[in-house]
Parts: sequence; structure tokens; C-alpha cells
Amino acid sequence: MAKPLGDNTMGSAAEGRDGALWPDTPKGPLSAYRARASFSSKELLLFWDGQDVLHFKIFGSSVFSSGSEQHLKYLEKIYNMEIFGCFALTELSHGSNTKAMRTTAHYDPATQEFILHSPDFEAAKFWVGNMGKTATHAVVFAQLYMPDGECHGLHSFVVQIRDPKTLLPMPGVMVGDMGKKLGQNGLDNGFAMFHKVRIPRQNLLDRTGNVTSEGTYNTPFKNVRQRLGASLGSLSAGRISIIGMSVTNLKLAVSIAIRFSATRCQFGPTDKEEIPVLEYPLQQWRLLPYLAAAYALDHFSKTLFLDLMGLQRGLLKGDHSARQAELGRELHALASAGKPLASWTAQQGIQECREACGGHGYLAMNRLGDLRNDNDPNCTYEGDNNVLLQQTSNYLLGLLEQRLQDGARFTSPLKTVDFLEAYPGILSQKFMGSSKADWLDTAALLAAYRWLVCYLLQGSHQRYCQEKESRGSDFEARNNSQVYFCRPLALTFMELTVVQRFLEHAHSSSVPPSLQAVLKRLSTLYGLWSLSQHVALLYRGGYISGEQTGRSMEDAILALCVQLKDDAVALVDVIAPSDFVLGSPIARADGELYKNLWAAILQQNGVLERAAWWPEFTAHKPVADRLKSQL
Amino acid sequence: MAKPLGDNTMGSAAEGRDGALWPDTPKGPLSAYRARASFSSKELLLFWDGQDVLHFKIFGSSVFSSGSEQHLKYLEKIYNMEIFGCFALTELSHGSNTKAMRTTAHYDPATQEFILHSPDFEAAKFWVGNMGKTATHAVVFAQLYMPDGECHGLHSFVVQIRDPKTLLPMPGVMVGDMGKKLGQNGLDNGFAMFHKVRIPRQNLLDRTGNVTSEGTYNTPFKNVRQRLGASLGSLSAGRISIIGMSVTNLKLAVSIAIRFSATRCQFGPTDKEEIPVLEYPLQQWRLLPYLAAAYALDHFSKTLFLDLMGLQRGLLKGDHSARQAELGRELHALASAGKPLASWTAQQGIQECREACGGHGYLAMNRLGDLRNDNDPNCTYEGDNNVLLQQTSNYLLGLLEQRLQDGARFTSPLKTVDFLEAYPGILSQKFMGSSKADWLDTAALLAAYRWLVCYLLQGSHQRYCQEKESRGSDFEARNNSQVYFCRPLALTFMELTVVQRFLEHAHSSSVPPSLQAVLKRLSTLYGLWSLSQHVALLYRGGYISGEQTGRSMEDAILALCVQLKDDAVALVDVIAPSDFVLGSPIARADGELYKNLWAAILQQNGVLERAAWWPEFTAHKPVADRLKSQL
Repeated sequence: MAKPLGDNTMGSAAEGRDGALWPDTPKGPLSAYRARASFSSKELLLFWDGQDVLHFKIFGSSVFSSGSEQHLKYLEKIYNMEIFGCFALTELSHGSNTKAMRTTAHYDPATQEFILHSPDFEAAKFWVGNMGKTATHAVVFAQLYMPDGECHGLHSFVVQIRDPKTLLPMPGVMVGDMGKKLGQNGLDNGFAMFHKVRIPRQNLLDRTGNVTSEGTYNTPFKNVRQRLGASLGSLSAGRISIIGMSVTNLKLAVSIAIRFSATRCQFGPTDKEEIPVLEYPLQQWRLLPYLAAAYALDHFSKTLFLDLMGLQRGLLKGDHSARQAELGRELHALASAGKPLASWTAQQGIQECREACGGHGYLAMNRLGDLRNDNDPNCTYEGDNNVLLQQTSNYLLGLLEQRLQDGARFTSPLKTVDFLEAYPGILSQKFMGSSKADWLDTAALLAAYRWLVCYLLQGSHQRYCQEKESRGSDFEARNNSQVYFCRPLALTFMELTVVQRFLEHAHSSSVPPSLQAVLKRLSTLYGLWSLSQHVALLYRGGYISGEQTGRSMEDAILALCVQLKDDAVALVDVIAPSDFVLGSPIARADGELYKNLWAAILQQNGVLERAAWWPEFTAHKPVADRLKSQL
Repeated sequence: MAKPLGDNTMGSAAEGRDGALWPDTPKGPLSAYRARASFSSKELLLFWDGQDVLHFKIFGSSVFSSGSEQHLKYLEKIYNMEIFGCFALTELSHGSNTKAMRTTAHYDPATQEFILHSPDFEAAKFWVGNMGKTATHAVVFAQLYMPDGECHGLHSFVVQIRDPKTLLPMPGVMVGDMGKKLGQNGLDNGFAMFHKVRIPRQNLLDRTGNVTSEGTYNTPFKNVRQRLGASLGSLSAGRISIIGMSVTNLKLAVSIAIRFSATRCQFGPTDKEEIPVLEYPLQQWRLLPYLAAAYALDHFSKTLFLDLMGLQRGLLKGDHSARQAELGRELHALASAGKPLASWTAQQGIQECREACGGHGYLAMNRLGDLRNDNDPNCTYEGDNNVLLQQTSNYLLGLLEQRLQDGARFTSPLKTVDFLEAYPGILSQKFMGSSKADWLDTAALLAAYRWLVCYLLQGSHQRYCQEKESRGSDFEARNNSQVYFCRPLALTFMELTVVQRFLEHAHSSSVPPSLQAVLKRLSTLYGLWSLSQHVALLYRGGYISGEQTGRSMEDAILALCVQLKDDAVALVDVIAPSDFVLGSPIARADGELYKNLWAAILQQNGVLERAAWWPEFTAHKPVADRLKSQL
């Protein structure tokens, strides 16, 4: 880690020393912006990625986490690439409602086998990654039935679906490929139906429940609901990895759009002089908040992963403390709202970047379309975003309920909810400033966000209680308190968490002095821009008042955009991968926008050739009258 | 046109009579919703499409509108399909800034020819539809230079680019295909460079300027700027047609998402009973406003087209009145903000519909991806949305300037700006209600929107004047008053226009009584939902105050959603095309969601077959150690 660097001379020394690690950016049309940057991008790269996690690996497959020693034989074969697996939970007619899965596994004591069966095509396993063409084995979730007819709920089973030597399906298994998706077509999502497929008793992954050789069902859990929770618990790590994927997509998109905007000139103060479109306040306002969001969510993604590692360490050590359980619940709440926030921010950011690059952004080779299409499923899989948000609002409302009923304190291992302990006092606060400078104050920004979360928590609780009282149904009361209440509650709580972590990081003593200004601006821009979506609530709840207060928040956002626009290219240099990986001709590091785009166009296959249909078209033209009569 | 129908008996009579025109919807899972609808979908279809424009055709090609009699020979060949044309304006390095195009056309008096030339590849014509593989001729925009070196600005020329018999490029022309775009790949967008290509003098499209056989330049226009305006005027019709395309995309997307939501069941009041996801208030709130928007923008699109026809009639009759000129300006302003509003609403609506269909919405065959990708360029071509909005705000600010300086009245042929005449009084108004019922009042809704437009008009003007005074530059003052001022000014003015036209239509005496309730709800939902995006400004400017006022607007929106959810399927039946045209297995009219999806999956080519790479994969498996060492 570099020591804090106080001036440009030392900054240059740092550059020289790290030259071997990071080559200089190429000279070209982007050099002017790079020269105007307020900091050294190499120094920020060292600081930012120096705090990175080095290899990210989801710990433990389903087999490992749900099975026991007898299943280690699979791990060996997986490792040796003798078999290929997939995870089959979703069915054609059920996704979010996992409890309603209809595939069955009946136990046959005579042969000590389970009989896997799909009652009809609506129970076909669906959307299973790797299943379409590749997988030889699947972890299949099915309702476990004992011979007495009792159903013990959803369990997972290892089922061989194809012969590893021929890739032909096993008897009784119908397996196929779902076809083209909007994106992610490198993955062969598939479906499968089972017609009374027999598997050995031992293929039940028995961490949550087991059938003995004598034919008795045992489980360490008290009831079906608790066991289901345990068997699905491993999904949390998946959500955290999706946050990381979303951040990667957003970083790529803003890198493309900002390099393009710094080299694309259009109009200017005179007819003779054109300026880069990045100089226009409108373009800055469209893009720079997403650049700030990429940094904010990147930081959040990394710290949340470290929190997850803390949880995993506890699991491995057999920690059964209350704190460990609380950490699990808190992480579940953070991952459940973090995935929606990250995937939606990326989706909207990519769309804005696409449009900000105009027609050239619509050209497939410039990659914004692939990014949009590949990011899109992040909003859906591992839990639909809107459904997942309810996990987080339920967590917060549950804490409030405990506090109201039992006087329990608001507190959690990662301290994300601790501020709620002061919620009555927070709700009586008001914003004391009215100027741009007041909004640029970090404490004021966080105070406003905390008030907002308390306001929505209180409102959601009131709405839920009213609905519960008037309708008498918990189901209806929950459904009727989502829009305008629980949904924004979960999102704003998440935004506050991300904003707070980034602000604290930017203001921490570990930041080299030469990087402090830019990181403070970035974190404040992300915070204010996020908060600005909720100004209506700040006014409505009386936290702010007067025309000037709202207007000065907008002025603060625009001022930060102007301050950051000369740093934008250098900030992108820190988060952009190499040109080869970025893979967008309009966004290469040399900034030679038109030269690179023109070259890429001319290098396409057959670009100057006539179409294959030309002889038919030119020799046998359609008869105009015939076509006309058909119109 | 059906007469107003007073009761269900007569409604049934209407159904019987129109049975030949519109077959009954098939029985199936959607029947329950259809039975609960408050109106007859056939009757609404008759009313709604009875007011349709029957064939939409952009009137007059560029050749027709920019040329003169001598160019009629081209029209004949175009009609006979002997030649195929395209329109080449945009260049690699210039799009929005049309004046900065760099292709040149030098006149050579010795041969009476123009010499078309691309000075370098940055001036290559780019994005030209039909040019990639097909077109034989192009209308090329180039700077016209006379032998004395004087440049007369941008003119259009007919240039043969390929031999119609062979499709080989003509000498001096390099022409090719741009490659894959995010969508619209049925169109062969292309590029072209010209190396001193000679064309006859007569190929200048001479409506805006001409070179005589003696070598003298003549133009009916006073200056370059005025002539440019005239030569680009024909683009307005294009923008109006894009509004129609966006509406079509939005109608298709909401049809898919609502039919899916009415048949997809997930969770329910008990573990045994599941309900359609359309029953969840959150799902209603996500989708029904876009259904209302589809109707609102559909109505706007049709009426704007009729307004355009009025303008065209005036042009054909040689109307040079002040009213005709004013109508042209007003239509330009409406088309310039109408395209952004329609294309963005469609883009956001398609994304919401995609997500609302969960994983199944991500399957390519269900079509939401194609809709999103094909709609996307509507945000960019024929003028980037953000750039176009400035045309509309400039129009409004220009009227205010005239009023302030010359005392001119706010008035326009279509009366969209007439309310601004009362702007000082409007700005002193306040919302007098606070309840849900107050927001459901049409007059109150329109009054709030009018106040909002006046507030933003005043704010934009103030910001512009301040910036002008402090910076002294008109260019900077305009740029610095876009965000938070001119941009929302143009959008809210447009929303008001769309809302007002739809509200007036829904409340007109021509609506059959049995359709009044549903159309009033739809138009009010669109209006309130649009207005709800601007609540922060209503509070900030003091138009509304108090917690209850904002909350009751949300209650009104949710109440309308609940009222409309049983009508949603029938409303979709009115705007959805046939199953074949809709082309989405999850959205067929019979509502057999899973049966249709399963059938479509199994009918794909090779769905159950092994992948082509299976022999290599199974016979020559990669060696795990080798792969490992490369990771």
C-alpha cells in the first residue's frame, strides 16, 4: 500500500514506481482530460484495488453444503470433470414460491430407492443453468414422500440425467434446451421432466433430513418451514455474487460512455468550434452520477463479501451463538435489497450510457447492448427484485415489532440498523440548512437519509397495522403495504447503507491526501443523487421546507458534476479493464474514437461485399404491380 | 360507428352484430377476468379503432419534397422498383449538429457537374438505412461550393451508389454494411465514402437552391440558416411516425405482461391456494399505468397525425398565412417532445413488462427482448431525445419572450399553449383539496399540471436570464439551464398535452355510456401517475402542502389500479393484435400460459438433441490438471 502522497512530485514518483504494474495510458484525444484530473489515476488504482478481495469464489457447492461424507465421491468426479452438475429448483409454473414445487420423490423401502417423478409438464424443472446441453447430474428439489403417504417437504437429490460417455439422457428423463434468451446465451439453460426415475436412497442430500436404511425419516429441524429455510440458505451467497456482477456491468458501461463523451464533439460556442459532449452539464448529469454509483456499489460489494466471509468463518467454526444467527439475518437482509439496488442501478445506468452514446451506442460492436441484455437477468434470478425487497422490509418491520412489543434494542452485528434506536428523536428532526453548502455536508446528508428511513419505517408499520385491522388478513395487509411503503423502505435503507459505507471510506484516514478530494466528491454525489429521488417525501414529511432548500440540493448535484467532469476520464482509467476486455471500439484508452470505430467496421467479415441474395434480387426483381396489389 | 349503448342488453346486441368482424375471444384461463370486466371489449374496440386513421403513410419522399419536376423520373423508377433509394445525412463524426456535415459538392462549370467528395473517413456517411446492402441511389447531403470558393451550405443531391443490375458499387464510391445493431437488424444500415464522384448538375434537389446552366447560384431563401431549416423541415413527419412506432411497441409489451400476470399464479392467502399475480397491488401498480399510457399515447399519436395532415393540406394548397406558419412551429414543438415522451415511456414500460414476467419474460421467444431492442433507437434517431426536447423548451421560452417584450398573446393554432396567457394568475393558485377524491377530479388534475408547466417555464426563464447575465454567453446560458429546468419544462408540457387530449376524449359526448367509466379511469390514472413524478416540485413551489395531500394522491393512484385490474384483460383484448402477430407464447388470447409455452419450447429445432460438440466433448475430455493450471 502506498503511503499518503502530499504533492505532485511524490505522485510522479509513485507513477514511476508502479510503471511496471500499470503501463502509462496511451497518448491521444483523452490526454487533455487526463492532464486536467485533480489526482493520479495510478495512485487511486493502487488505493482502490489494493483493498480488493483477490479471488472471489462461492464457498461450497450445493452438494458440499447440503450433503454429508457419503457425497464426497461426487466432489471428486466434479473436480476431475468426469461429471457436470446443475441446480434444479425452479419449475415451469413456480419460481418465487419455492414451497409450491410439485416434483415428487417417493421412497420405496423394498429397493431402498427414491422414485423421482414430474406429475405433469407444469412441474418440469425449468431455467436450469448448464442443463440444456451439458450437465450429466442435477441437484433436484422435490417433495419427499414416505410410504405412509406423509409429505416431509422439499428436499434435494442428486439425479443422473445423462450418460457422461454419450450425453444421451438416462431412461425416464426428458431433458432439453430452452432456446434463446435475451442475453447470457453462453449458458445452456434447460428443462427436465422425470418419469418415475429411480435413484439410490443415498442420493438424498441429507443435511436437512434423512431416510434411514430401516425406512425411517429423521430431521434435525423442528418443522417443514424451518427446514426449507435451511436448505435455501445457501442462496444468499449467490445474491452477493450478483451484486458483484451488476457492478462489473455498470463499470464497463460508464467507462464506454464517458470515454466516448470525452472525445465526441458536437456543437460549440461558435459554428467553427465544437466541444466534447462531456462539457455539457446535461451530459454530465446523465453520466457522472452513474460513475459515482459504480464506485459506491463497488465498495459496497467488496465490503459485503468480507462480511459474508465473516459469516462463513463462523459456520466453519461451528459458531452457534446468537450473534452468528443475527449476522445471518442481517446479511440476508442486506443481500436481498443489495441485489435489487445494484442490478437496477446497473440496468438503468447501462440504458442511460447507451443513449448517451447516441447512434454509435446502438451499434452492437460497442457492447452496450450485450451489457444491457446480460445484466437484465440479475433483476430476476436468485429471487425477483420486487419479491426480495420484501425480505428486507420484513426484517426491519420485525425489529420494530420486537422493539414495540418487547422493548428490544435496535442493534445488529454490522450496525446497519443501530441508528433506528433513536427513531422517535430522528423523526422530530428537521433539515436546518437551506444552501448548497448545507447539502454538501456529509453529516447533513446522512441525517436526511436516516430521517427518510425512519419516516418510511413508521409509515409502513402504520399502513400494515391499519390494513391488518380492517381486513383481518396478514396476507392482504402485507400485499397492501408494499407500494409507496415497504418497497421504498427497503430501497432507501439499502441506499443509506451503501452511501454511509462509501462516505466513511472516502473520509477515512487511510485515504492518501491527494485522493481525498475526488473520493469525497464522488461519495457525496452518489449520496445526494440517490437522495434526490426522494425529495417529495422530505417535503411531505416536513423534513425540509421552502423553495430554496430543494433548489439548492439540485445546485449541489450540478456543482459536484462540474467539479468531477475533469476527473471523469481518470476515474474511468481506474475502473476500466484493458481495451481487449472492455471490447468497445468507441472506448479504447487511446481515445481515437473515429479511427478505432472505422477500423472495427471495415474489419467485419464481408463488410464491402454484395449480399448473398444479390443475383436473385437483381436478375429476378419482383414485379411491382404484383407487390402493390398485396399491400 | 356504434350509437351510445345504455345497458348490457344492448351491449350484447352490439357483440352479436360485430361477431363477423371480431371473433369471440377463446375460452380459457383468461375467461374469469373477461367476465369481470365492466365493459364490452368489442364495443370499446369499435369505438377506439373507429376513430383510427386507416392507412398511415409519410407523405412525399425527400426527392418529391426537395426536388422539382425534372426529378419525377426518379419517382417512376422508384415506383417500378428499378432503383432503391436511401437518405444520407448523418456522418461518422456528426449527427445532431447537421450544419457541421463535411461532405462537399464542388460545382464544375466546364462539365456542368457536381463533384461529391468525402474529405476523410470522419465525413463518411453513416447509419444510412437501406444503404448497407440494397440501395442503388442515395439522397446525399453535402456542402455546396461554387467555383469562386464560396460555400452555400448544406444541399441534397441524388447520387447513384450502385449498379442496379449487379449491385456493385459505382466508381469512386466505397459503400458497405455497418454490421449488427442492438435491434432492427432487418434493416441494412450502411456507410459510404465518395472519392470525387461526378454527378450531373440536375441531380441537385433544387427546392432550396439551384445552380443555373450558366453557373449561377440561386436560392429563394435569404440566408443559409433559413434554407437549412427548410431542407430539414421534412423530418417532423418522421418524428410523428416514431411516436406511432413507440406506441405500437408499448401496446405489445403491456399485452404480453398483463395476459401473463392474469394467468401466472404465485403464492396466495393459504399454502393451498394461489392467486394470479395481477391480484397483487404491487403488480397492478407496475403494469396498469403503462396500460393507461398505451391508450393515452395511442390517442395522442392519432390526433397528432391528423394535425399533421392539416398542415400538409395547407402546404399543398399553397397556404402562406401566418396561421399556417404558426401551425408548423407548434407541430414541430409537439413532435419534438412527443417523440421523447413516447419512446421513453415505451422503453421503460417494456423493461417493466419484461421484469414483471420474471424469467419467462427473459426467454427470447416471448418477445419482450426484441421489443426493447427494436424500440431503443426510437430514443435516438430523427433527433436524440434530449436534444429534441430543447426544440420544445425553446418554443415555449420564445413565446414567453415575445409576451414579455412585445406583449404578444400566448396562442397557437392547436391551442396547446393558450393556457399560458393566464400564467401569472396560475402561479398564484394553490391546490385546494387534500383528499383522494380531490385528486380524482379532472379539473383539479389539469389545474395542477398547468401550474407545474407555468412554474417550470418561469424557472427556466429566470435561470436562463441569470446565466446569460453572469456569463454573457447565450450558448452557456442555454446549456446551463437544461437540467432541472428546460428539460422537465418540455416534458411536463408534453405530458399535459397528452393528458388533456385523453381526458377530453374520455369525457366527450361521443363516448358510449357503457364505456365512460373505464375510459375516465384510464385517463385519470395516466394523468395522476405522470403527475406523481413531479410531486417534489408541487411541494417545493407551494402548490400543495401538508402530509395528507401527497399521500392521498398515492391513494388515488392505487384506488384506480384496483378499479381497473378486472378490466385489464379486456382492455388488452382491445389493443392486442392476433396471436400470430403478437407472437408471444405466454400471451396468447386463450390464456393457456404453460401449455403454449411448453409447446413452443418443444417445437424448437433440435431441442432434445445432443449438442453438435458432444462427440469431441465426451471422447476427448479436457485434462483437469491442465485446465486447473491455467485458471
